[in-house]
Amino acid sequence: MTQPLRIGIAGLGTVGIGVVKIIRRQADLLKARTGRPIVISAVSARDASKDRGVSLSGFDWESDPVALATRDDVDVFVELMGGSEGAAKDAIEAALAAGKDVVTANKALLAIHGQALAETAEAAGRVIRYEAAVAGGIPVIKALTEGLAGNEITRVMGVMNGTCNYILTNMEARGLGYNALFDECAELGYLEADPNLDVGGIDAAHKLAILAAIAFGTQPNFDAVELEGIQHITLEDIRQAADMGYRIKLLGVARPTPRGLEQRMKPCLVPRDSALGQLEGGTNMVVIEGDAVEQVVLRGPGAGEGPTASAVLGDICDLARGLRLATFGQPATGLTRAAPASSGLPAPYYLRMNLADKPGALAKVASILGDAGVSIDRMRQYGHDEATAPVLIVTHKTTRQALDVALEAFSDTDVVAGPAVALRIETV
Amino acid sequence: MTQPLRIGIAGLGTVGIGVVKIIRRQADLLKARTGRPIVISAVSARDASKDRGVSLSGFDWESDPVALATRDDVDVFVELMGGSEGAAKDAIEAALAAGKDVVTANKALLAIHGQALAETAEAAGRVIRYEAAVAGGIPVIKALTEGLAGNEITRVMGVMNGTCNYILTNMEARGLGYNALFDECAELGYLEADPNLDVGGIDAAHKLAILAAIAFGTQPNFDAVELEGIQHITLEDIRQAADMGYRIKLLGVARPTPRGLEQRMKPCLVPRDSALGQLEGGTNMVVIEGDAVEQVVLRGPGAGEGPTASAVLGDICDLARGLRLATFGQPATGLTRAAPASSGLPAPYYLRMNLADKPGALAKVASILGDAGVSIDRMRQYGHDEATAPVLIVTHKTTRQALDVALEAFSDTDVVAGPAVALRIETV
Repeated sequence: MTQPLRIGIAGLGTVGIGVVKIIRRQADLLKARTGRPIVISAVSARDASKDRGVSLSGFDWESDPVALATRDDVDVFVELMGGSEGAAKDAIEAALAAGKDVVTANKALLAIHGQALAETAEAAGRVIRYEAAVAGGIPVIKALTEGLAGNEITRVMGVMNGTCNYILTNMEARGLGYNALFDECAELGYLEADPNLDVGGIDAAHKLAILAAIAFGTQPNFDAVELEGIQHITLEDIRQAADMGYRIKLLGVARPTPRGLEQRMKPCLVPRDSALGQLEGGTNMVVIEGDAVEQVVLRGPGAGEGPTASAVLGDICDLARGLRLATFGQPATGLTRAAPASSGLPAPYYLRMNLADKPGALAKVASILGDAGVSIDRMRQYGHDEATAPVLIVTHKTTRQALDVALEAFSDTDVVAGPAVALRIETV
Repeated sequence: MTQPLRIGIAGLGTVGIGVVKIIRRQADLLKARTGRPIVISAVSARDASKDRGVSLSGFDWESDPVALATRDDVDVFVELMGGSEGAAKDAIEAALAAGKDVVTANKALLAIHGQALAETAEAAGRVIRYEAAVAGGIPVIKALTEGLAGNEITRVMGVMNGTCNYILTNMEARGLGYNALFDECAELGYLEADPNLDVGGIDAAHKLAILAAIAFGTQPNFDAVELEGIQHITLEDIRQAADMGYRIKLLGVARPTPRGLEQRMKPCLVPRDSALGQLEGGTNMVVIEGDAVEQVVLRGPGAGEGPTASAVLGDICDLARGLRLATFGQPATGLTRAAPASSGLPAPYYLRMNLADKPGALAKVASILGDAGVSIDRMRQYGHDEATAPVLIVTHKTTRQALDVALEAFSDTDVVAGPAVALRIETV
């Protein structure tokens, strides 16, 4: 195989330009490793005249990504436009129909339409690779699909949105509120055009749905991910959680349960001294647990030109080397439809509430928890100058249902002021 | 491809039995993922009558691993006997000559004879996979060879001998000396038959030589690894290093320098709060740095039945899926012979010495360092009841040569009692 691998790149934003730079800068290295030259035949982007800081004059331009995807001189269509609908999806479908392999960084598309695309690719005898769609530069798709293929996966967890982790860790480190850090992220360009994709947890949930499909041999099912963003996390909760030995992370968790597949992307507490607890700033981390390997932890940059382009190049090199694999690691037609296990397995919870300064208030709270079958592991009540006192409780393992009964009962008393905060504690 | 992949396993120790168990327990899962059954045709071990806790009655037995490796009903020869010479090497060569692919966990063999074996495999059109040879359950060979193939690798580092890390972290945590923990490891079965493979750093250096070959496209060259074990690390150094904000690790580092390829496996200091510094017990960690990806950190169990078998199965699944790759990621005949860069790039160093309680003693030390061109970043002198006082120095970046000049000069004075300890500080 000494014929060049010819690629067409649609989308010349940060990642697309990063890919162009690597292919140009490391041409010799890539050829030595894959045994053949990797060449760019043509590119496509909205604005052909924009200065992107790198010469594109050697490549043909296509204004239409579908035209790019179906060119005779393109073996691999590299989709870096993004978006779960429209141009990206059309172009990928056109590429597969025209007998091209596809490399994409498009997590939304795969989380939502991954099953249909995988079936299309399979029928066409083509492959779709998407290392860059999950956790940026960390080769986690490869680790899970190939390296750990001998494992029955028992749990996949990840902090996979760098912006959320930046906000949460800076709230604690700098004592700033959520809004101040949200504004800072907007100024720094850390937010998607629709910021809810980041802070609402949607982007990270897309990634989780993809990992779950590979891990458990199930059809990707983004709609089944229980979703909660970080918008309501307060500095007080971050500080109180820290005081109890925890950090708050937007953590994705997927695992099989007797009632179906649990998939959730929600703020939860992890021990401060765990690998997840110590993850700072925009870095991503994925934890994979299997029956044989026990636990593997992967950490790296979750975004940025170089790291994301590195992941795209990993896929391109695989294809250049003839390494071909079913989209989610096994035939798409064999992927099962998992029932969603909506509220997860029992877990300990962190509770914070403001208790009225009345005799018997704490006894009332304890009694409500006891009646709901929720037992208390640790409790702290803080000194105060006001009419209410902050109370922190860490429960033993309980179901969310039992906890909801207690939370409901709290609101019917006159001893708990305002709603209680309840966050799951993930055992890691 | 619905024909079964037929394997023969030579070596039925912990790992071999782990592989048998997974293939039996997860037959359906492996078939779903690879598209074909994975079956064991025959096995080989020294003692056929030994009870290994798992039934082997369904497999043919071969007393001679070469006979096993060349059987007509074996597609992949799985070598789990170990040892850089003798039976393992003979059987692998026989397997390649007979047109079989090879999966092995044998780090010594690959570090020492990897180049010749890779050339043999290439000439025969066969592949050798060895995920289990480095860092146990962590899929690091795959991450480096494939996932990060788009990167010019700038540094690879790793804590890759769990026994050494167990000893070093327990010295600090439990305040025990090296000898007590060495004895404990012997009792727990954590040591190789020749313990120098572990505590002398040889085992970890084998792994480093393999990673360096992949990372830098060079022929594996174990002899060029600068090697130093942990036998001389004292509790006092561990405590003093901690006091200065560091931990001592047996850390392997490989990186290209202007003078050649630096490969060293030596105790050195890393910041306490870094991922490497926080690595506890027998867990392994590999850090890969590339021009595009920046830094990826992989952590997981470095040994044990399940994790090592997981890595072996990763390779077997690759072969079942038709994923085939050159041994060190590119044609063996194209690997370069790197000149060894013996003493590495400049680095900060940690120095500990006992200073005589004489006027001008510290001035003398400072003046010797200054004359050698070594500048002091931080210094601590401790109170004492004896005739000498412990002094700790962290230098600015310096060459080992300049430092050796100073160490030599110390020994010619009457103000430094006994030899000074000098350990490199690795920037991570």
